[in-house]
Amino acid sequence: MDINRYSQINPPQRLLMGPGPINADPRVLRAMSTQLIGQYDPVMTHYMNEVMELYRKIFCTDNYWTMLINGTSRAGIEAILLSAICPGDKVLVPVFGRFGYLLCEIAHRCRAKVNLLETQWGTVFTPDQIEDEIKKIKPKFLLIVHGDTSTTMIQPLKDIGEICKKYHVIFYTDATASIGGNELETDLWGLDAVSAGMQKCLGGPSGTAPITISHQMKEIIRHRKCVEKGIRTVEHKDGDGEIIYSNYFDISMIMDYWGPERLNHHTEATTALFGARECARVILKDGLKKNIARHKLHGDAMLKGIQGMGLKLFGNIEHKMHNILGVIIPKGVNGEQVRKFMLEDFGIEIGTSFGPLHGKIWRIGTMGYNARKDCVLQTLACLEQVLNLVGFPMIPGAAVESALEHYSLENIHV
Amino acid sequence: MDINRYSQINPPQRLLMGPGPINADPRVLRAMSTQLIGQYDPVMTHYMNEVMELYRKIFCTDNYWTMLINGTSRAGIEAILLSAICPGDKVLVPVFGRFGYLLCEIAHRCRAKVNLLETQWGTVFTPDQIEDEIKKIKPKFLLIVHGDTSTTMIQPLKDIGEICKKYHVIFYTDATASIGGNELETDLWGLDAVSAGMQKCLGGPSGTAPITISHQMKEIIRHRKCVEKGIRTVEHKDGDGEIIYSNYFDISMIMDYWGPERLNHHTEATTALFGARECARVILKDGLKKNIARHKLHGDAMLKGIQGMGLKLFGNIEHKMHNILGVIIPKGVNGEQVRKFMLEDFGIEIGTSFGPLHGKIWRIGTMGYNARKDCVLQTLACLEQVLNLVGFPMIPGAAVESALEHYSLENIHV
Repeated sequence: MDINRYSQINPPQRLLMGPGPINADPRVLRAMSTQLIGQYDPVMTHYMNEVMELYRKIFCTDNYWTMLINGTSRAGIEAILLSAICPGDKVLVPVFGRFGYLLCEIAHRCRAKVNLLETQWGTVFTPDQIEDEIKKIKPKFLLIVHGDTSTTMIQPLKDIGEICKKYHVIFYTDATASIGGNELETDLWGLDAVSAGMQKCLGGPSGTAPITISHQMKEIIRHRKCVEKGIRTVEHKDGDGEIIYSNYFDISMIMDYWGPERLNHHTEATTALFGARECARVILKDGLKKNIARHKLHGDAMLKGIQGMGLKLFGNIEHKMHNILGVIIPKGVNGEQVRKFMLEDFGIEIGTSFGPLHGKIWRIGTMGYNARKDCVLQTLACLEQVLNLVGFPMIPGAAVESALEHYSLENIHV
Repeated sequence: MDINRYSQINPPQRLLMGPGPINADPRVLRAMSTQLIGQYDPVMTHYMNEVMELYRKIFCTDNYWTMLINGTSRAGIEAILLSAICPGDKVLVPVFGRFGYLLCEIAHRCRAKVNLLETQWGTVFTPDQIEDEIKKIKPKFLLIVHGDTSTTMIQPLKDIGEICKKYHVIFYTDATASIGGNELETDLWGLDAVSAGMQKCLGGPSGTAPITISHQMKEIIRHRKCVEKGIRTVEHKDGDGEIIYSNYFDISMIMDYWGPERLNHHTEATTALFGARECARVILKDGLKKNIARHKLHGDAMLKGIQGMGLKLFGNIEHKMHNILGVIIPKGVNGEQVRKFMLEDFGIEIGTSFGPLHGKIWRIGTMGYNARKDCVLQTLACLEQVLNLVGFPMIPGAAVESALEHYSLENIHV
């Protein structure tokens, strides 16, 4: 092995306009280059407390137990599901895209009795559909994705909490793709648990998963408490429930680490925590509502631009997330060739798709740091050139004009 | 909430001379401030391949399946144990410190039949002790910590692989605390799986766990393969074995993500990967052997200095890790007061202890970026002052002189 073959990290500049990860906010990357401190340094535990406070605002909740799981967004999902679901528990998962199947899959690995409710990709569920299925199945948990990037759809959750309350169902959502760029009201909507990720509208790198859990959910998890032998003392009492079949994802232990007990669990990923704190701080400094409005503005401008090109959109766009758009690949156009051209010659990444949509749609994101006018216009301008080169005719300049018209109607020029 | 109360991340400068995390190498932090690229960008998958190559050298192995788990070091442990152990499997865990109990705990949560073999904290096992227990228990897996920071001991593993082979036992070690600063020979010692962490001798921040698995271990895990429904196509065949009771830690799926299939699993924590790559690159540029020798040199200098102060060491120091030292808190000295003084007034962190050693020893580390002469001398100089202030008498200057004498004997002045 010739070690000199391995140079410093120096990737080409990419404009990431896919379903995420997107370019991280430079302020977040700077925060992440901060030198480390010890995990029980009072400065560190103070930062941990601040992270809890900041993410309560991001989740719109008063839940005390709002913290980070050290792993990517699916680590957040799995921590909640493994900590809450006992083998044999009945769960209902309404599935409207790939990440719904992921919830089924994780619940299955928790040995839950998993019930699927499916709808066509590109659509979402009505509250009635979900209520009917809850009445039929009588699940202990309802697990549902909020925004599923695979179809670009966002499931309205506003009325679901009330239904869950009525039938004593614990209500969880995966808000990885939606949080920060779309309305999400943990307390108002009656959610018992929400998990998220950094690499979409929050504008950070993948690797940390913010979660929040309600009092009711906390009780379920605390009932399964079990302290590690290596750090057990007489004061620590175990719960009466079935143990959690993971140490790393045992939220009861993670609570003892984030809470006033400060009982050792993992060694907090300090750099990731610094990044997560900065993501939340930057968003809240502008205001969460303003951040969501920014995602809507630029998402809509992208949509108008794509329509201006004469391209068709995928799914019921009334239920589209602000931050992602499914674009039907026109007949005769090789979708992968276009993506390759965009990436290699223009330095712009747009997304491919999963499962039944593979090869049928591109997914174009406008999120986090890249929910900006210049990103939208660059992407449209370059996509027009590439489509022109592969022989898809359109009115030159129409895409950018349509987007600019939208900005002008919204009176936002910068 | 007044968001202006939350300023930029700006912790005080600390010299971290505890059991880890330690100060990250500035080159690693710089690598981690690099802008992101897409997870299937050819540049990114090339970096992933390079990470595999670099960590093969760090683990001293030819194992193809050498990669990162996105989580802290115990995520690496849990990924291996959950992916390999089926409920009911018999495991043997020789325990010589707190992290041995952690292996028991995780194996218990995998629903293994867990057999402990214990020895007094501060000692390690002889190969005979382990062989006798293997003969008695006939386990499927031997799980053992390599270096346990709780006691500062390192378990010699050189002869254990041969024993495991003889009795058809799968051999795993947790090398979080030892790797990079102590000899570790994955292939030569017949290890089937090793996991590690970044925040000790590798000189990075906690948050990624490098792992390596042998062909034999790969076969066990592949047998349990199960592809997610959302991305399943006809070409993907499931194994015949029992499913793995975790999606996030399913190494068979993580292999499909790191391998040529590039099947989507989690979204790789790019920033953490950039950091992990730089840690390995920096070490290998100097040479792994030189890096281990550096840990020995500065660890020994610290030991001589502490002895020069008239302080006693904990445990059988013949089996001490190079990078960590247990120092018995002298009678009449309040250990926590000393640590607080050191941290708050001198900006230097030394470690406390767990379980039976709590309040009895300090743990002083010399590892990764902080395995340096200046770090050793600063720590000794300041500790002398603090001990003097709390009324523990010693010959002024003796500690630093003893350390300097060691450096001079080793002919290393810088």
